[in-house]
Amino acid sequence: MPQLTKDHFEGLDAQDPLAGFRDAFVLPDNTIYLDGHSLGPLPKAAAARLTQAVTQEWAQDLIGSWNSAGWFQSPYRLGGLIASLIGVQADEVVVTDSTALNVFKVAAAALSLRPDRKVIVMEGSNFPTDNYIVQGLAALLGRGHEIRFAEKPDLLGAIDESVAVVILTHVHYKTSHVLDMDALTRRAHEVGALAIWDLCHSAGVLQLDLSGARADFAVGCTYKYLNGGPGSPAFIYAARMHHGVAVQPLTGWWGHAEPFAFERDYRGAGHIGQMLTGTQPILSMAAMEAGLDLAASADPAKVRAKVSALGDLFIELMEQRCERWGFRLISPRSGADRGGHVAFDHPQGYPIVRALIQRRIIGDFRAPETMRFGLAPLYTRFVDVWNAVDALQDIMQTEAWAAPEFAQRDAVT
Amino acid sequence: MPQLTKDHFEGLDAQDPLAGFRDAFVLPDNTIYLDGHSLGPLPKAAAARLTQAVTQEWAQDLIGSWNSAGWFQSPYRLGGLIASLIGVQADEVVVTDSTALNVFKVAAAALSLRPDRKVIVMEGSNFPTDNYIVQGLAALLGRGHEIRFAEKPDLLGAIDESVAVVILTHVHYKTSHVLDMDALTRRAHEVGALAIWDLCHSAGVLQLDLSGARADFAVGCTYKYLNGGPGSPAFIYAARMHHGVAVQPLTGWWGHAEPFAFERDYRGAGHIGQMLTGTQPILSMAAMEAGLDLAASADPAKVRAKVSALGDLFIELMEQRCERWGFRLISPRSGADRGGHVAFDHPQGYPIVRALIQRRIIGDFRAPETMRFGLAPLYTRFVDVWNAVDALQDIMQTEAWAAPEFAQRDAVT
Repeated sequence: MPQLTKDHFEGLDAQDPLAGFRDAFVLPDNTIYLDGHSLGPLPKAAAARLTQAVTQEWAQDLIGSWNSAGWFQSPYRLGGLIASLIGVQADEVVVTDSTALNVFKVAAAALSLRPDRKVIVMEGSNFPTDNYIVQGLAALLGRGHEIRFAEKPDLLGAIDESVAVVILTHVHYKTSHVLDMDALTRRAHEVGALAIWDLCHSAGVLQLDLSGARADFAVGCTYKYLNGGPGSPAFIYAARMHHGVAVQPLTGWWGHAEPFAFERDYRGAGHIGQMLTGTQPILSMAAMEAGLDLAASADPAKVRAKVSALGDLFIELMEQRCERWGFRLISPRSGADRGGHVAFDHPQGYPIVRALIQRRIIGDFRAPETMRFGLAPLYTRFVDVWNAVDALQDIMQTEAWAAPEFAQRDAVT
Repeated sequence: MPQLTKDHFEGLDAQDPLAGFRDAFVLPDNTIYLDGHSLGPLPKAAAARLTQAVTQEWAQDLIGSWNSAGWFQSPYRLGGLIASLIGVQADEVVVTDSTALNVFKVAAAALSLRPDRKVIVMEGSNFPTDNYIVQGLAALLGRGHEIRFAEKPDLLGAIDESVAVVILTHVHYKTSHVLDMDALTRRAHEVGALAIWDLCHSAGVLQLDLSGARADFAVGCTYKYLNGGPGSPAFIYAARMHHGVAVQPLTGWWGHAEPFAFERDYRGAGHIGQMLTGTQPILSMAAMEAGLDLAASADPAKVRAKVSALGDLFIELMEQRCERWGFRLISPRSGADRGGHVAFDHPQGYPIVRALIQRRIIGDFRAPETMRFGLAPLYTRFVDVWNAVDALQDIMQTEAWAAPEFAQRDAVT
């Protein structure tokens, strides 16, 4: 690879077929925002939609808005937008509650389909809320379920005939590695297990085909690459073959066959709505719709290609300009194996991320020494990558605390 | 009681110590809103707060707002406001998730404290989501728990030594009857059971003293009399003696002792935060805060007195002016036994509610024939009661479909 130049990055922006999306977002002035893997920025249309929801729907139309503004249908309408992003049918997804709660629902639903099996396979280094939730479910059930934790290289081998369900996060929150959804789901089915996928770091950056992979269930969040707003509700997918069969235990009135019949006893809706529980936070859902509209209108192949290219270039620039300071790439080198962010470990990761933030380059830090840089496809420019690494090099060269001995230390570890 | 006149109602408004609160809300022009028991109106400050959350905190400060804008602390900050309304300590309440999900948490937590008991007492005619959730929990546990449904007169008798937990809604969603929290909680404790109270129709209208009643757990919604906005998250109370002891099974990362340590295994926070599960919908929570501020700043004794007075007058006016059409009061006649709305049954309840709405008097209808009129204390005027009943009388006198034979029919049923 020849020495990269800023011109090269500017040229890529000029040719970027997704470049037009950037104008749909509010981005702070003089800021390079590389934290979209944690919280996406505000879509301009979201602010307008929320104003409508507050000043007209809530303030003027009040209770009538449950019908007239489609509030009650929000989980289904938003779910339909998600469906197109993950490669499933519109009536197989709803938006509701948090990712953690949705993991509980689908994990319990999957276990209800495999009552005689006791093993749940998960990745131990996963973002821990999924682990915690399944630990809580297993303890509640009190029937001796075991969580078999394995790491990426050992996952296929961990899936045997004792396994009831495999619950995996598709893109790793820290390293950004992508698990092989097709192979792992196939392996699960071969041994008679079910497969649940957490798409928190996948939706909006990767080309997804959950139906093609024959995934049984999935969950995911909407506030990262889908730009739904802080804490916007999560989504939940259930393959149609499981509707009305798998038992989701959080049986609230929104999942009832006739919510407004006010019957004493629960009767499940029998369709994807059975994954709903209680009343949803409508203002957060209203704000979310704009982000989903944008994501759903972008060509998934172009999104995937841009995400890979941004990450490849970030890594190449780091190699060319920052190698002597001992940054360790912990993300896959190949774009095909990597999600939307790139991550490097460095003993001075924390002060480096702080110094970048002072220069209005926003990445984030995960203890003990991981720096994450999110390369969201709809608003990140190629030149942002150039400028970010340029600033990083400058920090290492000029800050007194950025000691050169780390290059040496790293060379021997 | 002498014949009531409009002057009397206007006089009461002139003396109303809570009258000043009305100006804190946006209310549609030429509308009498009597549906605050379902969805409270927009507090003016909520719109401003939400604009701040969107245009500054999300758009400009982005990920930093989790700390700088206090997003992560929202469940606790909002919980502290609720605490003052229900008579408990600030560190015993968080705002999070939906009422239904919170019922699941506290029901499971209570059962974890009484592992050898199998009976759960509930009111069969309760708003059904609580019943549904407990049915789902019992089925998930698969250990033979029985829900013993009883109605108000039989509740005390239904609580015996076999009972693990009593889960009751304090104010009935349909009739507005108030259960005796002190007596029922005392009875539960006498037999070694725990008491959970659903305060959905209580918070913001009644004087509540959960600590005084020694209630073990409580839940409630914030979008009715607390004016938190459509679907705003619910609250959950756990008496401090149960913190770190009762097991809440929806164990997500927000309830972990160190959420940002990203440990593989769950360790509960040991304080009220253990009732949290996943990431919360921040925009809905931001909008909610204004309504809670208003509710918390109103004198609870004056709130309770006004609610009773509004309801008493509504009932008296109905008796004086509409008796011949056979409306059946299904709410308690005495204000002390009644919550924030009054309810009447009438075979023509549905068209009557529709006709009132056409005249911009907004109540609601629950099948088969219940009309509910919410008398929220912070914005309902006494003259609104006069005008609502005046319109109702006019509808019965003038609408062709409002047939006089219903008076007869009713006289014999």
